[in-house]
Parts: sequence; C-alpha cells; structure tokens
Amino acid sequence: MTSQMAQQRFSTEQAASDIEAAIEAVERAMLGVVNSRVTVLREASQHILEAGGKRIRPRLLMLSYLALGGTDYDYAAPAAAAVELMHTASVVHDDINDHGVLRRGRPSINAKWGRTFALLTGDFLFTSVYQLMAPYGALNQILADAATALVEGETLQAEAVKNNDFTRSKYAEIIALKTAALFQAAGDLGARLANATKQQIEAMQSAAYNIGLAFQIVDDILDIVGDEATLGKTAGIDIEQGRGFVSAQTNGHQTTHEHKGDVFESVKAKLMKGDYLEEARAQARALIEMAIEQIKTLPESGARLALIELANQVVDRDF
Amino acid sequence: MTSQMAQQRFSTEQAASDIEAAIEAVERAMLGVVNSRVTVLREASQHILEAGGKRIRPRLLMLSYLALGGTDYDYAAPAAAAVELMHTASVVHDDINDHGVLRRGRPSINAKWGRTFALLTGDFLFTSVYQLMAPYGALNQILADAATALVEGETLQAEAVKNNDFTRSKYAEIIALKTAALFQAAGDLGARLANATKQQIEAMQSAAYNIGLAFQIVDDILDIVGDEATLGKTAGIDIEQGRGFVSAQTNGHQTTHEHKGDVFESVKAKLMKGDYLEEARAQARALIEMAIEQIKTLPESGARLALIELANQVVDRDF
Repeated sequence: MTSQMAQQRFSTEQAASDIEAAIEAVERAMLGVVNSRVTVLREASQHILEAGGKRIRPRLLMLSYLALGGTDYDYAAPAAAAVELMHTASVVHDDINDHGVLRRGRPSINAKWGRTFALLTGDFLFTSVYQLMAPYGALNQILADAATALVEGETLQAEAVKNNDFTRSKYAEIIALKTAALFQAAGDLGARLANATKQQIEAMQSAAYNIGLAFQIVDDILDIVGDEATLGKTAGIDIEQGRGFVSAQTNGHQTTHEHKGDVFESVKAKLMKGDYLEEARAQARALIEMAIEQIKTLPESGARLALIELANQVVDRDF
Repeated sequence: MTSQMAQQRFSTEQAASDIEAAIEAVERAMLGVVNSRVTVLREASQHILEAGGKRIRPRLLMLSYLALGGTDYDYAAPAAAAVELMHTASVVHDDINDHGVLRRGRPSINAKWGRTFALLTGDFLFTSVYQLMAPYGALNQILADAATALVEGETLQAEAVKNNDFTRSKYAEIIALKTAALFQAAGDLGARLANATKQQIEAMQSAAYNIGLAFQIVDDILDIVGDEATLGKTAGIDIEQGRGFVSAQTNGHQTTHEHKGDVFESVKAKLMKGDYLEEARAQARALIEMAIEQIKTLPESGARLALIELANQVVDRDF
C-alpha cells in the first residue's frame, strides 16, 4: 500500500466516522427538542422519530457542512434536526389528510392517537423546528422560506387533486415547492454554517435542489412499484388520490375509494408496461448527474465523496 | 383650560392617533405575508383576517412598544402581526378539531374550504409567523417558546377532555400555556423592541401574562353566557367538549353530541344560578388589577393609559 493510498483510506474512514458522529448529534437534537412536558406530544413525536426514516435531509445538511470545512457537529446539528422535523411535521399532517395508516413501518400518528392528537403533534413539530432554529439569527429566513414553499406545494397538490388538474407542469411546480425547496435549504444551511464562499453556497443550493427533485420523482415511482413492507408506508396513496408523477403522466386520472384495489392494480399494470416509469427514472438520473457535477466543484474530501454517494443512492434505492 | 390640561389632551389625542397608525401597520404586515401565490391559502387567510377579531395581542405588543418609547411602527408591526397570526393559526386548527363552523362572524375555514385546506391554511399561517419573525434575530426565541406553550396547552386540554380529567389546577395550567404565554410574549417583544430596561421588560411580561389569564377566563365565561351573534363564533363548544372554566368547576362533566342542546341548556341554567360565574369574574378582575399595578410602574404616557384601558376592557367586554 502506498503512503498516498493509506492516507486516502485513513481519510475516508475518518470521514465515515465523522459523518456518523454528526448524524448521531442530529438524533440527539431531535429527541431533545421533542421532550415535551405533555405526554402525548412527547410519545407521539418519539414514536415517529424512533421509527427512523432515511434522514436524507439532515444528512445532506451535515455533509454540506463537513464538505465545506465545518468541524463542530453540535453547532450544525440543531439546524439539521430542524430540517428533518419540518419534513416530519408535514408528513404527520399529510397522513391526516390522506388517511395514511402506515408510516416508517409503524402505525401513523393519525392511526395510533387519532386525528386531534396527530394534528397537534404536527403543530408541535413545527414549533420544535422554530425552537431549534431560533438561536441561528439571520439563517432563520432560509428555513422560513422553505417551510412556506413546502406548505404551498402541499396545497397546490391538494388543489390539483380536487380539481382533477394534474398536468406535467403542475407536477414540476409542486415537487419544486414541496420537496426541492427543503432539500435546497439543507444544502444552503450546511454551507453557510461552515462559512463557505458565495460560490460554494450556490453550488450546494443547486446540488441539493436537484437531489430533492430527483428524490421526489423516485419516491413517486416507488409509490407505484414498491411494496408496503419495504416502503414502510401506505403505498398506492398517490394513485388513489390522483396525484404524483404517474397521475401527471396520465393527466390526473382519479379513482375513488370504493374501487381502490381494482383501479390501483390496473393503473399499475398499465404503467409498468409503458414507458412512463423509465422516462421518470431517466429524468431523476439526469438531475442527479447535474447535482454530482455541482458537488464536484467543492474541495475534495471524504464528505464530498459521501455527498456523491448520497446523490447516487437517491436514484438507486428501493425504499 | 389650563395649559397642563391642554398638554394632557393633546398627548392623549396624539397617542390615540399613534396607536391607530400602529394597528394599521400590523394589518398591512399580516395581509402582506399571507399574499401567497397559492389561491386557496391567500383567500382562506384573507377570509379570516378580514373578519377582524379583537386584535388584542398585537395591540398589546404595539402599546408596550409605544409606552416604552418605541416610535417606529414599521419596525415593530411585523412582530405584532406574527403574534396575531400565531393565534390565528391555532384558531384555524382548533376549528378542525372542534368542528367549529362559525368564527369571527363568518363560516370557519373548515366549514367553507373543508378540512384538508383548513389544516394546510393553519400550517401556512404558522410558516407566515416564521417569515415575519425571521428578521428579528435573537427575539425569535421568545415567540418560539410561546408557540410551543400554546400547542402544549391545546394538547393538555384535548387530553383532559379525553380522559374526563378537567380539574381546577389542570385548568390553570392549560390557560397559562395556551393563552397567557402568547400574551406574555406580546408584552415582552414590545418592550424589547423599544429597548426597554430589564425591569420594564419584566413589568410588561407580568402584566401581559396576567391580562392573558384574565382574557381566557372571561372568554370561557362568555362561551356560556354569550350569544353566538355577539361572539361571532360557535358558542357552547366548551361545555359540549367538557372543557373550559365551567367544566373545571364541575369536575369535567362531559356531554355527548347527541344531547348537546339539552345538556348545554341545563348546565348553563345551573351555572347561571350558581356562584361559579361570579367567582370566575372576580378572579379575572383581580388579575387585571395586578396587571394595572404593573403597568403603572412604566413612565406616564398616552400609550400607558391605553394599556390600562385595554386591561379593563378584557373584563368589561361582552364579546
């Protein structure tokens, strides 16, 4: 083994252990802030947090931070925790509106505690985001913008479903708002917390934004081809609700509750044969390639390598 | 008219016009931030904001600001708007959980746009709070704490209703969290924005906290003795749900939907004869007297006079 190779291996191992330590700091920050005096808020929040989830948004933030020279996990972790809790809050409210009963392999909060407490737990997770971000001063604007975009995207989606108006361009607008904006905020916050240059911040914003778009497209594909046990959440909701990538391709084909099983199976069969899914996968892959190019403008490091790996995993996953 | 009296009258008139200008700045800030690109969020938010409401929380903030020497309305108004929108968000979600159909004399968002959009509009109002506060740096912690307390209080209330465990001490804990904390934040923020002294800030925190407790007690009384047309919201919800001041006095007597009318009328008749309501009014009055003592430690001014008037109105209102 050459000394350069040893150096390389050492730094990769070091980076991996740094990244794991960083993610553990995020978990601590999340569990810390939801430790409410109110039993049901504490237990319902722990229920969904302990179920895991991919943690892709906080990982993106921490990797962006580490890749741009940040070293103090405990400084960046609460911001990463805030980004993940913002996502979690929206998921909890989403499960109320969609009647989702399974989430991260567990009963949804809605299913286990009922609608009233699910609504309040979602609200509590929102206020926890605010708690975590309060010490970050001017950086609050970044997450405020992403939070607004997220709710706007969810609402546009609900409107499109209601009006049976789910076009391709509407789909693009929705996933930009409901998913890519929060990913972008994660990349952005990580870079700014590391005192990155303007150019580096912009590179991470763009990369994270593109990863977010790809992530949502793949999520929508998996909603069709994945099975519930692997996904850990109620599958087929998108088709049932007439939304998501596929509905956009088929121009808002909407089904009813009564015939869910039949219609779902037939739409699915049709799509699995068609080119829709392949086209969507190709789009996601193209977005990831762009993201990787942007990431490659950052200085070489173990964290940069991990960012590229994260980007690739977004399209290569089956859950 | 002596010159001192003329001076006094002038300053009172000036104060009144300052206060009105300040409140108008708050209205502008609220309507500005909810001007979303998403139609339903914009229209539903405008619907509830244009219905008015007492605006007591933002008025408290602006009066605290003016009474402590603040002069720049446009600087303080977004914070006051944030406090009012935090309250509004919670009201919108509350109407989902309570099936309230009337709010501020109009159909609730829930009744007019349905549950899904009411939930999302509430979320959007939360993110609007965050938007408005983001520029205030360290002051974000104050509203974050109040927002968390508010959600915790609402949840404790829902828990108490569910477990039929609505005691007097539980009631005190709930109103402190769900109402007094946000009032306190309003007084606190107004004072800090005016660069008040530590002693002045503490006086306004306490005064606003006590006004908040009194406000909630009076609200709960009005829920029983008021009529819907004057209140502008669905009355009797508290008794129906087995919560509020009166339920606390009668140890969580809980009724069912089926017999709402009968039980409501009989509980109401019983209470109107008893001493419960008089006792509650006396409590509220005592809290307001304490608040007024605290306000009187501030320098004399038209705004201070208006603060005392606001405190008195809290117990003297019939809506």
